[in-house]
Amino acid sequence: MTVSIIGAGNLAWHLVNVFEELDVRVAEVYARKKKNAESITGYLYDVNVKTDLDFSDSPSKLFVLAVSDDAIEIVAKQIILPNDSILVHTSGAKGMDVLNFAKFQNLSLNVGVFYPLMTFSKGIKVDFKLIPLCIEAENESSLKILRKLALSISDKVDVIDSEQRVILHVAAVFSCNFTNHMWALGKEIADDAALDFEMLKPLINETFKKAMKAVHPANVQTGPAVRDDFSTIEKHRNIIKEDEELLRVYDSLTKSIQDWYQ
Amino acid sequence: MTVSIIGAGNLAWHLVNVFEELDVRVAEVYARKKKNAESITGYLYDVNVKTDLDFSDSPSKLFVLAVSDDAIEIVAKQIILPNDSILVHTSGAKGMDVLNFAKFQNLSLNVGVFYPLMTFSKGIKVDFKLIPLCIEAENESSLKILRKLALSISDKVDVIDSEQRVILHVAAVFSCNFTNHMWALGKEIADDAALDFEMLKPLINETFKKAMKAVHPANVQTGPAVRDDFSTIEKHRNIIKEDEELLRVYDSLTKSIQDWYQ
Repeated sequence: MTVSIIGAGNLAWHLVNVFEELDVRVAEVYARKKKNAESITGYLYDVNVKTDLDFSDSPSKLFVLAVSDDAIEIVAKQIILPNDSILVHTSGAKGMDVLNFAKFQNLSLNVGVFYPLMTFSKGIKVDFKLIPLCIEAENESSLKILRKLALSISDKVDVIDSEQRVILHVAAVFSCNFTNHMWALGKEIADDAALDFEMLKPLINETFKKAMKAVHPANVQTGPAVRDDFSTIEKHRNIIKEDEELLRVYDSLTKSIQDWYQ
Repeated sequence: MTVSIIGAGNLAWHLVNVFEELDVRVAEVYARKKKNAESITGYLYDVNVKTDLDFSDSPSKLFVLAVSDDAIEIVAKQIILPNDSILVHTSGAKGMDVLNFAKFQNLSLNVGVFYPLMTFSKGIKVDFKLIPLCIEAENESSLKILRKLALSISDKVDVIDSEQRVILHVAAVFSCNFTNHMWALGKEIADDAALDFEMLKPLINETFKKAMKAVHPANVQTGPAVRDDFSTIEKHRNIIKEDEELLRVYDSLTKSIQDWYQ
């Protein structure tokens, strides 16, 4: 299998790595600036670094758009692809149809999505085997090719359509982005009182383990909100009352927990 | 060292276990109902099960109140303790002074706090060595005894006064209770769309690891809010708009993240 990667960011780096490792040939890497593409292809011995979006002579049949959400449409409008090739993006939030712009240049193009449900850090390799890959394609033959590519790097491949993928993305925002922000606020509260956030880590760790093991995280909810402990809630509100923004978040989540369990 | 435990709940079970294991003698366990106390003392060979709060003849000098926050004051008002003994509670939210009610029965009493910063599951033993124990006492001699007891079971003993302890408790609400609720909401969103929450767990796990390793969790924040990706935010809001409560939480936390990074 031969693929081309459009993009030279975090995800592109990881894809180039895992494809190379698992004998998927990366024929081309595109970036607007040559040195950016070269920064992720340094150790590939047979790759074409491109700074233009004309792929009409490409040896690939599969093109993976690993660019930021905002850039997907822009690239789709400019890219020129070989006949009957497949263009996929890697975004959780964007629908497959945003790629239809690329069909104005080539009506024989097939579009799809290749979305790894993971957060990537540049330079830190991850085990792709455990990363859920959500794939979608506009026809069965493209889906078959995408599934083959996906299964060559991961054991967890799911066909997820654009509507479901956005829902998955919302669930990820709550489960990951918002939790991370809660830890940030927790550390801010500790820091402001010259308390070491490290003290909280064993409890955070245990809470995490419990929630992941539970049939439902709601089954292991603890704290003053779930037990309607109004005197503690008032004490907490009093502690943070100077910080209106923090108080607003405290009240909002306390209410949400109370509503869940009422 | 000889201690008595007042309470037969989750924390009492853990304390009885770890004390017994580390050669702190548990002389007495109190519960309102005899069978509750016996449920946690089954394997202790020399313990007095009590259902009354008259400890005037107790061999212990240290009494650990491991009851719910609401019960602390009630028990403190009724308990009768030996001269010069120490009474501690185990709550993160209550001040040390709530125990002063116990002095009406015995003016020679010393009060303090012995707060393990951890969530406990009944029946699942934990390694106390890694659990931060926050201690406080009204005088140096009591603090010395508390420190000795604390150091006999944990490597992480900190003297934390009542004001700091409540702040630590607020930080724990954000870092643990609220994060757990975010996972619950994430699962609810997935469940409602017949998506398997298991798919999100590798990402949740990676987010957790990144946040705990970061100098500050805020340094590794991801998602549409931190990058001001309004089109994705609107897409998400549109998905959950039927659930007013969920939308309220989404907006509240999105705003909080945006305010942090603006």
